[in-house]
Amino acid sequence: MTTAQIGIYGLGTMGSALALNLAEQGIDVAVTNREPERIAQFMEDSGDLSAHLRPHETLADFVAGLQVPRVVLFMIPSGQPMDEMIEWIVPLLDRGDTIIDAGNADFHDTRRRAAALAEQELHFVGMGMSGGEQGARHGPSMMVGGSDHSWRQLSPILRRIAARFNDQPCVAHLGRDGAGHFVKTVHNGIEYADMQMISEVYGLMRNGLGRPPHEIGDVFDGWNDGPLASYLIEITARILHSIDPETGHPMLDVIKDSAGQKGTGRWTVIEALRLGQSASTIEAAVGARSWSSEKDTRQIAEETLGGARLGLDLSVQSLADALMAARILAHAQGFRVLTAASREHDWQLDLARIAEIWRAGCIIRSALLDDVAAAFHAGPRAGELILAPAVAERLALCVPALREVVSAAVHSGHAVPALSAALAWYDTMRQGYGTANVIQAQRDVFGRHGFERLGQGGEFHGPWWD
Amino acid sequence: MTTAQIGIYGLGTMGSALALNLAEQGIDVAVTNREPERIAQFMEDSGDLSAHLRPHETLADFVAGLQVPRVVLFMIPSGQPMDEMIEWIVPLLDRGDTIIDAGNADFHDTRRRAAALAEQELHFVGMGMSGGEQGARHGPSMMVGGSDHSWRQLSPILRRIAARFNDQPCVAHLGRDGAGHFVKTVHNGIEYADMQMISEVYGLMRNGLGRPPHEIGDVFDGWNDGPLASYLIEITARILHSIDPETGHPMLDVIKDSAGQKGTGRWTVIEALRLGQSASTIEAAVGARSWSSEKDTRQIAEETLGGARLGLDLSVQSLADALMAARILAHAQGFRVLTAASREHDWQLDLARIAEIWRAGCIIRSALLDDVAAAFHAGPRAGELILAPAVAERLALCVPALREVVSAAVHSGHAVPALSAALAWYDTMRQGYGTANVIQAQRDVFGRHGFERLGQGGEFHGPWWD
Repeated sequence: MTTAQIGIYGLGTMGSALALNLAEQGIDVAVTNREPERIAQFMEDSGDLSAHLRPHETLADFVAGLQVPRVVLFMIPSGQPMDEMIEWIVPLLDRGDTIIDAGNADFHDTRRRAAALAEQELHFVGMGMSGGEQGARHGPSMMVGGSDHSWRQLSPILRRIAARFNDQPCVAHLGRDGAGHFVKTVHNGIEYADMQMISEVYGLMRNGLGRPPHEIGDVFDGWNDGPLASYLIEITARILHSIDPETGHPMLDVIKDSAGQKGTGRWTVIEALRLGQSASTIEAAVGARSWSSEKDTRQIAEETLGGARLGLDLSVQSLADALMAARILAHAQGFRVLTAASREHDWQLDLARIAEIWRAGCIIRSALLDDVAAAFHAGPRAGELILAPAVAERLALCVPALREVVSAAVHSGHAVPALSAALAWYDTMRQGYGTANVIQAQRDVFGRHGFERLGQGGEFHGPWWD
Repeated sequence: MTTAQIGIYGLGTMGSALALNLAEQGIDVAVTNREPERIAQFMEDSGDLSAHLRPHETLADFVAGLQVPRVVLFMIPSGQPMDEMIEWIVPLLDRGDTIIDAGNADFHDTRRRAAALAEQELHFVGMGMSGGEQGARHGPSMMVGGSDHSWRQLSPILRRIAARFNDQPCVAHLGRDGAGHFVKTVHNGIEYADMQMISEVYGLMRNGLGRPPHEIGDVFDGWNDGPLASYLIEITARILHSIDPETGHPMLDVIKDSAGQKGTGRWTVIEALRLGQSASTIEAAVGARSWSSEKDTRQIAEETLGGARLGLDLSVQSLADALMAARILAHAQGFRVLTAASREHDWQLDLARIAEIWRAGCIIRSALLDDVAAAFHAGPRAGELILAPAVAERLALCVPALREVVSAAVHSGHAVPALSAALAWYDTMRQGYGTANVIQAQRDVFGRHGFERLGQGGEFHGPWWD
């Protein structure tokens, strides 16, 4: 039996899909799983591809079946399980081997693990992988953090299995230690915002314009042929057209309006705050999911406080333009968080490259990301996406619609937390002279915190109590 | 020399003010300071009150000068300095002594310190204190976390120096370990939101209605005589009437619009997120401060993207009502964070009592807090402030103005991040059937995360790809 180029530990949905993708590309893959029963089933299901799969029941055999220096990819639950696996496998490894964590890990954990393993001359790669099961099986987008040594080991393999956009593989080495997992976290944060904005626009069409799901599905199908084209728009159209086989009702109408979350959205917002930033559109999306879980309270609140009114007067084109504007702003905030983190951790993230590898394979893939990549290649003023000429021009066309939509929604009581957060950020950033002078004055009055005078450094106090 | 009832370590602005307050109430206070030079100066400045002050140059003398069981209050920078002081003083203390940290500590640190000291049968009190220098000197609001033993030691002292509302002292024992510091953190979070909302309303009057500062100051003076009465409204009026002695311009107009922050607002938002909640109005205020620091970028953005338009059509009464509605909503979010934390840490926080002790002495003191206290005493439906009958009635009167104001601001491009976040939360919570069904469907399509059906437990998947 030949030794394998890579080993995959963890044959759940994602690990299995990834192993089959590798096998399909002619790469020999060692596979194993915590519960060995799963291994035989996986081999049986893999059909012809099993020729490239090398099953092992023990960790020792699994490691022994790998080419040296080894590449071991873990696709297991993040957190403690990862720490336990590292503890088990390290005694079996040799200097120069690479361990990959391809789950959605907290990048702080990744940094800690990379530092600890580096002391033993082992390499730890935190790899963000997006695209869900289908992506893993047929071409994911992969965000790699780790050493140059690991990247040399990995890149020939990963380039073959990655999603492709214009024939370029959607995988890149983004920086040291936690860079890959951090970028994946922000990817997911943008995903939260995008999903929430889509749901808000759906809500306006459904509850404000009174359109039935299938008509809204047609609208989304149309949008998917234009500048809004994206995977999330595409699947939302499909959802809107789906009928519940049990009741014959639109599928959406039988689904409880309580959304779960696994933490990456929240992490993005928390990291933004720690970096002295705010990803307010992502925060709005995270908040909306939290509030969605309080269904009982919301039902009492609607009884007590009344609900929104039908009879919005908005065109479908306005909604499309509003969604486009808000999506640009959410992406801009996401990239600002990347910029801040790159500075803090000295990752030297290449924002254009990140946008490029998000153009295919991942959940937020969209026509927009191609424009974002182009904007960052051109080097926008002050490093701000919204100040790139092409983006600014587009905002000039779309933001009036966002104003119209938010204004109408607010007026009629429809909830648009993410759309309005996006606009509030945009309007705040356009204030050459804002209103924080009031806040600095207040802070000086009650806490003697001092303020700068316009155009003068130093700390001043006001004559408040004279 | 008689022994002192309490010792104060740290004679900065706040520590000095607190020592003088205690002395004025006839309480004997031992005082000391890291730099002993400061001690003599403090004694000299304290005049007649020095009769109750016992200065010590060494930590040993300071501790020896205290009644047993001892009470030592530290008013020093939070973080590492506090840990260092604990390390130094612990060998000098005996079982049953209490150490108080009266700074703005992270409540996680307070919990850690309380647990560590409890092992040595020492008591650690995390005490939130609000009111700035004036509060500390003449009557602060104090939020005490710690053991019953410590509260028995402290309450006779603290009740004498606290601010009073209707002759009740604004101090309470709120719960174990970090409860006091946590409540203070959320107090500051609400303060951030309140300050930001005031600055947004100022911005609309100034830049939308074109009113000069002194006229806006008159409006705020008027508001301070009605239901909006609060310390922050009062000082904002004073700020608006202040003239720069150097230039003769309104003081506000010479202050740079970049606001600082020390972390408690950010902590509130992060803790809310960790608790599975969102304090979105506070987040908007934290975000606005962050963005205010990017003055150069904002100036370029205004050049590139254009600024807001004058010519808002809004009455002063609408602005007053809008501010009232938004303030109620920000307070409601703050109390929701307290509820979530109380559940998580088993503090059994008494929300009515917290509102009561915030009615005087602290920065967010206001007429509103008396109504909030009454609402929580009555036990609102689902524990939600906005569902208390009196609050819901008031919202019914004020929210239409908030809609009018946000809608107009959004339309003309004026930045109102906190006002619009408040409204977005309100409208989300009034949705008996929201739009998170779209999000759950999307999550099921790309990640097979499953969803609940309305009225049915369990996990279901959709027929998306049939």
